Amino acid sequence: MGADTRFILGPRPRLSDVTTSTALLTDHYELTMVQAALRAGTANRRSVFELFPRRLPEGRRYGVVGGVGRALDAFERFRFDDEVLGVLSEHDVVDETTLEWLANYRFSGDIWGYPEGETYFPYSPLMIVESTFAEAVLLETLLLSVLNHDSAIASAASRMTWAANGRPCIEMGSRRTHEEAAVASARAAYVAGFATTSNLAARQRYGVPTAGTSAHSFTLLHDTERDAFTAQVNSLGKGTSLLVDTYDITEAVSLAVEIAGPDLGAVRIDSGDLGMLAQQVRTQLDGLGATHTRIIVTSDLDEHAIAALAAAPVDGYGVGTSLVTGSGHPTCGFVYKLVARAETDDPDGELVSVAKKSTGKISIGGRKYALRRRNARGVAEAEVVGIGEPPENDGDDRPLLVPLVRAGEVVGREDLDTIRARHLASRDELPMRARQLSRGEPVIPTEHVD
Amino acid sequence: MGADTRFILGPRPRLSDVTTSTALLTDHYELTMVQAALRAGTANRRSVFELFPRRLPEGRRYGVVGGVGRALDAFERFRFDDEVLGVLSEHDVVDETTLEWLANYRFSGDIWGYPEGETYFPYSPLMIVESTFAEAVLLETLLLSVLNHDSAIASAASRMTWAANGRPCIEMGSRRTHEEAAVASARAAYVAGFATTSNLAARQRYGVPTAGTSAHSFTLLHDTERDAFTAQVNSLGKGTSLLVDTYDITEAVSLAVEIAGPDLGAVRIDSGDLGMLAQQVRTQLDGLGATHTRIIVTSDLDEHAIAALAAAPVDGYGVGTSLVTGSGHPTCGFVYKLVARAETDDPDGELVSVAKKSTGKISIGGRKYALRRRNARGVAEAEVVGIGEPPENDGDDRPLLVPLVRAGEVVGREDLDTIRARHLASRDELPMRARQLSRGEPVIPTEHVD
Repeated sequence: MGADTRFILGPRPRLSDVTTSTALLTDHYELTMVQAALRAGTANRRSVFELFPRRLPEGRRYGVVGGVGRALDAFERFRFDDEVLGVLSEHDVVDETTLEWLANYRFSGDIWGYPEGETYFPYSPLMIVESTFAEAVLLETLLLSVLNHDSAIASAASRMTWAANGRPCIEMGSRRTHEEAAVASARAAYVAGFATTSNLAARQRYGVPTAGTSAHSFTLLHDTERDAFTAQVNSLGKGTSLLVDTYDITEAVSLAVEIAGPDLGAVRIDSGDLGMLAQQVRTQLDGLGATHTRIIVTSDLDEHAIAALAAAPVDGYGVGTSLVTGSGHPTCGFVYKLVARAETDDPDGELVSVAKKSTGKISIGGRKYALRRRNARGVAEAEVVGIGEPPENDGDDRPLLVPLVRAGEVVGREDLDTIRARHLASRDELPMRARQLSRGEPVIPTEHVD
Repeated sequence: MGADTRFILGPRPRLSDVTTSTALLTDHYELTMVQAALRAGTANRRSVFELFPRRLPEGRRYGVVGGVGRALDAFERFRFDDEVLGVLSEHDVVDETTLEWLANYRFSGDIWGYPEGETYFPYSPLMIVESTFAEAVLLETLLLSVLNHDSAIASAASRMTWAANGRPCIEMGSRRTHEEAAVASARAAYVAGFATTSNLAARQRYGVPTAGTSAHSFTLLHDTERDAFTAQVNSLGKGTSLLVDTYDITEAVSLAVEIAGPDLGAVRIDSGDLGMLAQQVRTQLDGLGATHTRIIVTSDLDEHAIAALAAAPVDGYGVGTSLVTGSGHPTCGFVYKLVARAETDDPDGELVSVAKKSTGKISIGGRKYALRRRNARGVAEAEVVGIGEPPENDGDDRPLLVPLVRAGEVVGREDLDTIRARHLASRDELPMRARQLSRGEPVIPTEHVD
């Protein structure tokens, strides 16, 4: 916390990020479907796929769209270069005709979607991908991977920052999740209002501010706690955050203020009854004149633990495991379904709605629009999902779909601060009970309009 | 399933995998600790860190070590190259002295660990990292990320393959998790006995066999189910797997055998009451002479659903969400703690045990050994964890730690088939009740020896 948290604008792409193909981050069957459709002459039928949730995670009142920016990055790198084609050829994944088609693959269609940071509800059409069948089906796995993961993290993070009620939340869960999921989690948490992350790659790639000071091992490395605190303050300055629970907290707090003086930036408590300890440490700090020294708590926090500390004198929450695992819901269950296709192989043929009839797994055919219906006071009342063109806007309905890709070119990139601001605005628009952490129904109903 | 599932030996590393540094896939505080220790003159104190679990995921009877091979790959790429140093410098993460030290960073120490595929229990010392403090502390986040994730997946996968009792399990969860976690999940599932994956990058990087045929969208693309099945069989051959639940299952099965003949490879059922449907489809297939056509079921399966289908005529299980989310336990909670360090700055100084005193978060100081104690019939009886040198082996105790890195060089690489075989052997050695899926205690106790 004491370290520099200056916000660096915009990502600084690494060459390796830009040039590595994402084409094999997909399922085998996407390619065999293309092969079979090419042979049958149906691969070029104009098709509309929809990415949507059938439900919110159980008990949740709203979800948050995360990962759109990452999905667009991954989309641009979805190319079958020589290395990728070599793998597919060597392993006989697809036949020669398909390899040739893949070598020339370039998505030529359009993608619309909910912008990142937007809230969502059951059956919100989060992404609509329109192109030929073969071009669009290939994106299924990659788009789902990115959105299912990042939205799960953003949805959990949003509940945490709301529970923290303005106190900063610090993302520090990298060690509890896959090393690349960690970077995406730090980004998604920032989208949903987290102040900083511990993850340095998230700073490098996305400009998310980072912070960090020391672990228990640093104290244990030194002969005494005094030696450790002195070493840290000498190197990182008085503004640093000292970890005070390695031995005895009261002694550590005295020592911390003795060494750093009353301008000590923060103390961190990582174990025990955090509410009680925060109260005790606050009293002690104030008694020592360190009235501006902040108290940061960490230790298996989730949104419920954060809310329970609302009355405690806590100045920041470090959240790890529960953030990166979506606080009980590590994935969103979004699916990617064909909802319409050309009636014939004629490229100008009419689109017809399609949907499978499987028991209990409902899809609704047709290309959708989506609106957030709001009452006169601007409070969200319903998620309106319809087929075809939206009705004339009466002023209170907010259109939810924006263009992300047009004729194969990405047009929907945004900076993270725009996305953060959108999330806060969308969340604030929800009925008050959206903020309740108890299990409940989606806070607004989804209305299907024919 | 009908596609080629030939096993390709060994990984085929991509240039991009090999050359991309992993040094920023870490927490900010690892670097600020190094800075402070460098300034204090304590950075070079000889130190021993231990990576271990305080407990198994709640209710689990054993855990499985996953990710060791990936951790060694990531370790080799943990280098502060110019690009990484540029980021740290530009963002003022650490000072000039630290940047210079990092530029010359090369881990010079030793790492021992449980080999991949081994089972583990509370306080198993899964990795022991010995080097200078600064060299060893830097690896904390990256090693934890890889092992926490991959072991969570391997642990869940092992319960699934045990429940499947020899019937093949197919990993198909890529779309439900981060796109890179998906690749690692496919690898971890294979370690724990899965037969194939849908993930093509797992084939490319690790040689995991892949399989895949078609989705509902493929059927819906075509004017009739007959057109779709014909297209698939024409292109992928009779050995393919046809998805029969888009419309009416009985009609689809008739059609499938009519089109492919009795040599049809498999049918896949992805919805409904899978046990009842499998029975009905088996009877129908047998009646049509397709006695060797396999029945593959998919649809939110986990180890419990797999076990519940034991009596049904099912030939393979496709597992998605619950595999990649660790079946309720998406992370393992491994921690990385300093357990011993040199008493003084003298490089030849004695190592002393250290441990923090925080409430409820126990670490045990000292460099450990670990043995699996077995009875005369070779059945595991206890996890024996001691400090210092192991006792004379009486023949029934199996040493668990192997060298992974010696003087900075990776020595512990293994091929995946060796790892798979080890997992099966280690699992088979456990008491019978390890196989029970109900919630329980660790199947063997951990005995701490002083």
